[in-house]
Amino acid sequence: MSLAKTTRPVSIARIDGAAAAETREDSLAVEEPLEIRVGGHSVAVVMRTPGHDRELVAGFLVTEGLVKQRGEVLDLVYCRADGGKPEENILDVLLAPGAVVDVARLTRHVFTSSSCGICSKATIEAVRMQFPAIAAPLSPRRAVLSALPDKLRAAQAAFAATGGLHASALFDAEGGLQVVREDVGRHNALDKVVGHAFFAEKLPLSGMMLLVSGRVSFEIMQKALAAGIPCVAAISAPTSAAVEFARASGQTLVGFLRGTRMNVYAGTLAD
Amino acid sequence: MSLAKTTRPVSIARIDGAAAAETREDSLAVEEPLEIRVGGHSVAVVMRTPGHDRELVAGFLVTEGLVKQRGEVLDLVYCRADGGKPEENILDVLLAPGAVVDVARLTRHVFTSSSCGICSKATIEAVRMQFPAIAAPLSPRRAVLSALPDKLRAAQAAFAATGGLHASALFDAEGGLQVVREDVGRHNALDKVVGHAFFAEKLPLSGMMLLVSGRVSFEIMQKALAAGIPCVAAISAPTSAAVEFARASGQTLVGFLRGTRMNVYAGTLAD
Repeated sequence: MSLAKTTRPVSIARIDGAAAAETREDSLAVEEPLEIRVGGHSVAVVMRTPGHDRELVAGFLVTEGLVKQRGEVLDLVYCRADGGKPEENILDVLLAPGAVVDVARLTRHVFTSSSCGICSKATIEAVRMQFPAIAAPLSPRRAVLSALPDKLRAAQAAFAATGGLHASALFDAEGGLQVVREDVGRHNALDKVVGHAFFAEKLPLSGMMLLVSGRVSFEIMQKALAAGIPCVAAISAPTSAAVEFARASGQTLVGFLRGTRMNVYAGTLAD
Repeated sequence: MSLAKTTRPVSIARIDGAAAAETREDSLAVEEPLEIRVGGHSVAVVMRTPGHDRELVAGFLVTEGLVKQRGEVLDLVYCRADGGKPEENILDVLLAPGAVVDVARLTRHVFTSSSCGICSKATIEAVRMQFPAIAAPLSPRRAVLSALPDKLRAAQAAFAATGGLHASALFDAEGGLQVVREDVGRHNALDKVVGHAFFAEKLPLSGMMLLVSGRVSFEIMQKALAAGIPCVAAISAPTSAAVEFARASGQTLVGFLRGTRMNVYAGTLAD
């Protein structure tokens, strides 16, 4: 990941009260569309921060339930125009012989139910049941969890000028940092982490913990479950649907992880 | 909007260091799926905070480019099971006679281009060109902008225990608050504001300013443009794509609006 691509300079007018506006160079988090193709066919466009694009796409396929094993994917290649240089905003997934991807699953948020009786529980249940529940729940030690935010901040500082991006970090059960990824999109940062594990052939991520910099929505818990992650911790709050999902799927969910304090919303911790 | 529905009590374990865990009641921001139907056909499911659902759906249809005028929609009704009470997580849009909604536009993030030469600019351009550029740019006075965050906070405080939700507020050019909406999803909060204007038949929102509590992504600017909003201000930072979009569409974009300080990323302000 080149630093030049995660932030971009822009000329702005900085204003303070009635003083004359100052023209300044500011640094913006880069957000660009990435088109995802499977076997040459466009299946999605995601707005993301460039960098670790192959991981993002692989992780996206895994957390959307389209791909499970490393062996299903032969390679991911940037689209190359006739004789031109690779187009950095189009990634094509080349499937292994015999592998099949059910692109229709991508439309899970757009379905055709003729029933009037569907309720929120049924919808969330349907998404949850696409993935196996956590077979071996994880009860990390409090002290291990307390140490995670500082480790994340230290790792982010190493990336330098990328302030303001969402971060997602994977730790082992003893708090050993495995990988950190950043993105303007919270879901993308998580997909990049999962994609990293995909290429390392470490899926499912049994015994691992995920730390996210922001809030925890339903979709974060769903993507974590798709990767087999048994424990999710966050600096901020979870939503009601995230808590319900975690409890139903056997995931441990910790929020407001600040210093030695934390709230346990699902699962249990060890002392 | 009932307060009971935007937050939900949950029993959690609160931990502080090595002390015994305390069982506490915590309050979570509610996130539930809302199924959107048009003429009985399901077109989308969005995760949202219940409340102002009719506005959310109407605003969603407008900002996704599916509906333009109040007259195209006869009514929005909660789905009612045979003899049962209305299902609060399904809203059906009843179109006016003769009105047509091109549901295929909802798949704008999933397209089938066979070209290899598409670049990020082309993708963003294509989305931007779906909506007219701002005909009358807005250059609000600095002092008017400086006063907006406190007005938003005061209005949010009135909603009481809904801390942690994203907010979106519409102001006139003199800083008069028109409407505030909250949601776990930033885009939903904006869609609710646009839906409010839709029912009041105030679209397009010429001469109006939008204040958002979080960061400004490409999609926020796109939805604002769809509603004809010429000026967007944010407490936090915009992304690179948001700035590019604002400059191309004639929108004024102000970020880091804190006290008397602010950054102008696109357009101009009056003294």
